Amino acid sequence: METLTQEPQTNTSLSPTELQLIHAYWRAANYLSVGQMYLLDNPLLREPLTLAHIKRMLLGHWGTTPGQNFIYAHLNRVIKTNDLNMVYMSGPGHGGPAVVANTYLEGSYSEVYPRISLDEAGLKKLFKQFSFPGGISSHVSPQTPGSIHEGGELGYSLSHAFGAVFDNPDLIVACVIGDGEAETGPLATAWHSNKFLNPVSDGVVLPILHLNGYKISNPAVLARISHEELDQLLRGYGWTPYFVEGHDPEQMHQAMATTLDTAIGQIKQIQQEAREAGNTTRPRWPVIVLKSPKGWTGPDVIDGLPNEGTFRAHQVPLSVSATTPPEHLAQLESWLRSYKPDELFDEQGRLLPELAELAPQGDRRMGANPHANGGLLLKDLHMPDFQEYAVAVPLPGVTLASDTQTVGRFLRDVIKLNQKPHNFRIFGPDETLSNKLEAVFEVTNRQWDTETAENDQFLAPTGSVMEMLSEHQCEGWLEGYLLTGRHGLFNSYEAFIHIVDSMFNQHAKWLKTTREIPWRRPIASLNYLLTSTVWRQDHNGFTHQDPGFIDHVINKKAEIVRVYLPPDANCLLSVMDHCLRSRHYVNVIVAGKHPAPQWLSMDAATKHCTEGIGIWPWASNDQAMEPDAVMTCCGDVPTLETLAAVSILRAHLPDLKIRVVNIVDLLKLERHTEHSHGLTDADYDAIFTRNKPVIFAFHGYPWLVHRLTYNRANNSNMHVRGYKEEGTITTAFDMTVLNELDRFHLVMDVLDRLPQLGNTGSYLKQLMKDKLIEHKQYIFSNGEDMPEIKNWAWESHSVEDSL
Amino acid sequence: METLTQEPQTNTSLSPTELQLIHAYWRAANYLSVGQMYLLDNPLLREPLTLAHIKRMLLGHWGTTPGQNFIYAHLNRVIKTNDLNMVYMSGPGHGGPAVVANTYLEGSYSEVYPRISLDEAGLKKLFKQFSFPGGISSHVSPQTPGSIHEGGELGYSLSHAFGAVFDNPDLIVACVIGDGEAETGPLATAWHSNKFLNPVSDGVVLPILHLNGYKISNPAVLARISHEELDQLLRGYGWTPYFVEGHDPEQMHQAMATTLDTAIGQIKQIQQEAREAGNTTRPRWPVIVLKSPKGWTGPDVIDGLPNEGTFRAHQVPLSVSATTPPEHLAQLESWLRSYKPDELFDEQGRLLPELAELAPQGDRRMGANPHANGGLLLKDLHMPDFQEYAVAVPLPGVTLASDTQTVGRFLRDVIKLNQKPHNFRIFGPDETLSNKLEAVFEVTNRQWDTETAENDQFLAPTGSVMEMLSEHQCEGWLEGYLLTGRHGLFNSYEAFIHIVDSMFNQHAKWLKTTREIPWRRPIASLNYLLTSTVWRQDHNGFTHQDPGFIDHVINKKAEIVRVYLPPDANCLLSVMDHCLRSRHYVNVIVAGKHPAPQWLSMDAATKHCTEGIGIWPWASNDQAMEPDAVMTCCGDVPTLETLAAVSILRAHLPDLKIRVVNIVDLLKLERHTEHSHGLTDADYDAIFTRNKPVIFAFHGYPWLVHRLTYNRANNSNMHVRGYKEEGTITTAFDMTVLNELDRFHLVMDVLDRLPQLGNTGSYLKQLMKDKLIEHKQYIFSNGEDMPEIKNWAWESHSVEDSL
Repeated sequence: METLTQEPQTNTSLSPTELQLIHAYWRAANYLSVGQMYLLDNPLLREPLTLAHIKRMLLGHWGTTPGQNFIYAHLNRVIKTNDLNMVYMSGPGHGGPAVVANTYLEGSYSEVYPRISLDEAGLKKLFKQFSFPGGISSHVSPQTPGSIHEGGELGYSLSHAFGAVFDNPDLIVACVIGDGEAETGPLATAWHSNKFLNPVSDGVVLPILHLNGYKISNPAVLARISHEELDQLLRGYGWTPYFVEGHDPEQMHQAMATTLDTAIGQIKQIQQEAREAGNTTRPRWPVIVLKSPKGWTGPDVIDGLPNEGTFRAHQVPLSVSATTPPEHLAQLESWLRSYKPDELFDEQGRLLPELAELAPQGDRRMGANPHANGGLLLKDLHMPDFQEYAVAVPLPGVTLASDTQTVGRFLRDVIKLNQKPHNFRIFGPDETLSNKLEAVFEVTNRQWDTETAENDQFLAPTGSVMEMLSEHQCEGWLEGYLLTGRHGLFNSYEAFIHIVDSMFNQHAKWLKTTREIPWRRPIASLNYLLTSTVWRQDHNGFTHQDPGFIDHVINKKAEIVRVYLPPDANCLLSVMDHCLRSRHYVNVIVAGKHPAPQWLSMDAATKHCTEGIGIWPWASNDQAMEPDAVMTCCGDVPTLETLAAVSILRAHLPDLKIRVVNIVDLLKLERHTEHSHGLTDADYDAIFTRNKPVIFAFHGYPWLVHRLTYNRANNSNMHVRGYKEEGTITTAFDMTVLNELDRFHLVMDVLDRLPQLGNTGSYLKQLMKDKLIEHKQYIFSNGEDMPEIKNWAWESHSVEDSL
Repeated sequence: METLTQEPQTNTSLSPTELQLIHAYWRAANYLSVGQMYLLDNPLLREPLTLAHIKRMLLGHWGTTPGQNFIYAHLNRVIKTNDLNMVYMSGPGHGGPAVVANTYLEGSYSEVYPRISLDEAGLKKLFKQFSFPGGISSHVSPQTPGSIHEGGELGYSLSHAFGAVFDNPDLIVACVIGDGEAETGPLATAWHSNKFLNPVSDGVVLPILHLNGYKISNPAVLARISHEELDQLLRGYGWTPYFVEGHDPEQMHQAMATTLDTAIGQIKQIQQEAREAGNTTRPRWPVIVLKSPKGWTGPDVIDGLPNEGTFRAHQVPLSVSATTPPEHLAQLESWLRSYKPDELFDEQGRLLPELAELAPQGDRRMGANPHANGGLLLKDLHMPDFQEYAVAVPLPGVTLASDTQTVGRFLRDVIKLNQKPHNFRIFGPDETLSNKLEAVFEVTNRQWDTETAENDQFLAPTGSVMEMLSEHQCEGWLEGYLLTGRHGLFNSYEAFIHIVDSMFNQHAKWLKTTREIPWRRPIASLNYLLTSTVWRQDHNGFTHQDPGFIDHVINKKAEIVRVYLPPDANCLLSVMDHCLRSRHYVNVIVAGKHPAPQWLSMDAATKHCTEGIGIWPWASNDQAMEPDAVMTCCGDVPTLETLAAVSILRAHLPDLKIRVVNIVDLLKLERHTEHSHGLTDADYDAIFTRNKPVIFAFHGYPWLVHRLTYNRANNSNMHVRGYKEEGTITTAFDMTVLNELDRFHLVMDVLDRLPQLGNTGSYLKQLMKDKLIEHKQYIFSNGEDMPEIKNWAWESHSVEDSL
């Protein structure tokens, strides 16, 4: 058994000169951090500080910043001594000043923002822009070079870090985790990512748990459990913890240097054993626990209250303005001068050469590592021809096939063709089989790097499928994978993708912002395949029914989001091919997994998906004239019910002119001025008419369609059926009945809007009501839909049949 | 230091007779579980099994079920021997058959569903209804007596359990956690709830981590780490683990009985030490790890493949139908008969008396515990008179006040008045101070039961404020608290409440379903106070901007959801009072925290909030005639900008007739046929006119208004401004400019719709454009809005002033 606690080694890693230099570098970063929070001018304190030099609105988070500056400086050292390929992940991302300061010091900042030059003028701009209108955010934002993780919402740093190192065997991500973030659920389970990491084919994450004691105004849980408990916890998570604790800079520099040397040594040793000696035992990777005061080196006491080391150091510790006590200004000046800027910067305001030398060079600088600008490294996927996976559709509605099972074969070959670069992975919470993508396991496995047992299936130390029962992990891993220049797909039950609503938000905001940053290169799209949908939850019922993720998604910027609802397998193939080739979008694909009727040949499907919306002439009988009604469908089940309704209508009312419209690309419904996929009013009216009833069977919540079409000419004739939170464990068809989306209700909807049909209409309406009663009798008696529902298929001749 | 591993004690707790009886009870529960999955008839196997007795569609999750039956039987034993007040929480809630079987065996099921009688006829109905149209779900659903936790989405059992025991010192929640669920983020952090539990004033959670090795088709992480690691992990989380591992029933019964006796003994000892001896050291409560085969006692091998103990046992292990191998039927029969139903049930189909006696009596039965039907225990809050907290508003727009700070004083007194029953708590992720509810700390503290340090603030072993940096925990704790009959409030930053989108979904579904269950009593509403809103993120920027939670919420059933956007402090007081008194809703309140102009006196605010929407006559000049335009506002910042715009319009165009409408209750906009709060078309048209331009300044995403109003007469004249994902770190006013919701844009919107204004209109429009340019110059030069913006307040005389 290992010893319980691992004391920091006591030998001295740094020579006196090294110590002095690294301390000076840290002071420089701290100075630049405080400067960013406070100074509008006089950046090097060449004159006495006055209120005119101070920003009017003081913003920023000081608490975490000096600790991160400390870490960054020490990481620079080990990068240089070991020639490491390292990315810095700032979990406590509120510490924006730290990463900005450090990338400025190492030069990478000015390379992408030349106006923030390496001199006094540049310093002044660097300070002013921070948390200033038109400037940069107080977080580590996408504008910060070297960052792939924005510190807005907390919880995802560790899963982003793991996503970054999968298939990047040369990479180390140093992931700083704040003790606040460590309380979140996603972070708490992300520690287990080490069971999914392969020491041969993946890189390494070096977590640095930064305990500064407080979150906003409360203490942090992990800072207030015993050393023994924390040690047990991290060991229980499968790591080897190393503790660096204290506040005296000299001792802390030595301890941190020694600990980092140990950790890097251990990482190299594990990798060597795995890669050269073939030792496949799951390693206990090192984790560093850095316990340092919140607001370290900041004011001890402000207005008689302790500051450094307390929750009061969280944001801007010292308020300085015309209305605050005058001694605050002096206290700020003495705080700034405590870093001795004159000993750090030369006359021109450039960092002294002996300090600048401490930073790594070129791409080894963490602000310039290409992995943190993944678009630079992104390579196109080798794509099989999706048309070769087509389901044969001799006649619409005759063939039954599973849409996702079909696309699974296509995905299998995407994996196969990209096994060499190994830059495509599928993520999901143990639903890849349930979602019928089983074909992928013909060529790959689920990556699993812990114990296996007899009867396990499709597990291997490396594989292209990542499954952990945490949507947060799947999303976080995938985001990290994409942000470092690779490709991927998240497959999930439709209802539970809401678990990552907020993560999606942050990623969509990242994409929106990075579109506007010239030096950021586009990355691969974030692709969701949502299945096990609301309509087919006969196994799971009401709790598993929620089609609202797409409502959530389209609140984000139009240039980022895309939503597809392919009605059949061939359309899904075409859509998937398109999404995997696309860049810098979030693509949401909603598709069925159960065997279902197929409508379009591959050629027709390709054309239909390219257009995104279209009249299905083979299902319509309004050729060359205005229809009496437009039956519109979007989604697989609504398409089936619509075609069934049309079949009934045409059998009984052959003279009625029905136009059938199917929508694959939901955002076609928006105005072209709102979304680049949107139809012009003229094109929209040509499809939906300006005054005929439109009966719209929609996969999701019906009001989403109204939100998209409220400003179209024919809005007042639009009648939308969709899911309205009814139904639970019942048959697939009954779900449509309970939500009034079934064929019988759709027929009645048409009849209700065409009073001119008179008695014929009334007769057919009564027939529909009788059918609904008959259906209920069937399911309540033996748990099945009536045979004519079950066996129903749209066939070209069915229009001739009577019901 | 404690020993690292705690072996199950080896002494024998059960006498041979007790062993035989508890084993028989378990067999009975297993028999009923298999029966529910398979049998349509012949429930006691009184005749040879034929296909006619088998359901046509076989649904359910067997894997977890026998383990849960085992746990339930053993909990019954310790409840009886110790007279415990215990609730059962089924984390692996897919094991619906287990809880249904056990509540049936103990009699509580038939008490609420008399038609499911305790005889053969009842058994037949019990079996048929499971996962059958019109019957019950395959999960532990709200229909199941004794449950306050639905096993739809995984992750929340442990936080629900803790929520249930806060302020319930007599209660123990036995919380079964599946090894699948244990991988989720929320569950991974919920283990830390023990740092927030007070052994004197709160009850206890006894977690039972059920490792059966697999989630759906993958192994589970916690089942595949070493015993040592798992032990360390649980100790690191602050618990004392006890392991029960094996598959031999006899040994397992003895081990489980012994371990439960030990755990209950330890719980009592801790409570006694805390309550009688005043020992306040944070205890290491016991946790039980039960490692048993998945699908325990099910078929060993099916079609040549191992089943028991493998992932294949997850759902229905053995398919039996006309198309499956005929030997499956025989295998099912022999499986069912392996439980020896003849030795368990009498001639009439009743459980034998010596077995029935093993269950507790009356309310001690876990299916009848009133804490699991919280509405039974719910008491009205003692409410202070909210009007006494009013902000004085002598004239609209003159007084500045913080809305949430004002309501904080009201909440303080709600806490104070209910300190005796202690049935009201506030939950939040360390934002209660940031959200300006600091007044509550005059009378209470943040409950914190681990180490404290000098300079901590507002921490105490008991308190009414619960803060952990995990929205999942806050939501889960609050849900558990409400479901057991108490009251509460969640305060959060608006943007990050999306973290619990999916939890909200499940709770809203629970409320919808329980409304329809007669024996379930209504519970207190789930109240959200969302602040630090999208418009005031000068400190945090783009990542903290998302007003879309309300979009998400109103997709749920109209009878459950309510959304309020009070424009000022007095309105917030009225709304909060209303929400805290309400039952069985989800109330979302969006309010500002920054000092802002106040509009309505308390009387006017009460009237306005009661109506939910109204014309503000003091701000309008369309008395007794049709207005030229309707300026509508919803939310505090939009209200300010609208009134500022009106002020400009009236100064320049005094003859223009402007009507000002303010909305507090967002769902007033829906048709009354869709939502009980909705306006009739007549009332709506009386406010919004049928044909005048409506300029609508909305707090959230603008299309939400369109989704609510698309079918109103005046829809085509509705022009909505709202947040459209623009802006980041900048001034509050600039945020409105970037999203075009500011006063200048609103004025231009009116002008654009009134071409009859001619040159006067053009002149004013140019003036507005100039003002926008001037504003930009101000913020870019010194980081402030121009003084006239900053100091602007709506005053009754301002309409006379020129701009």
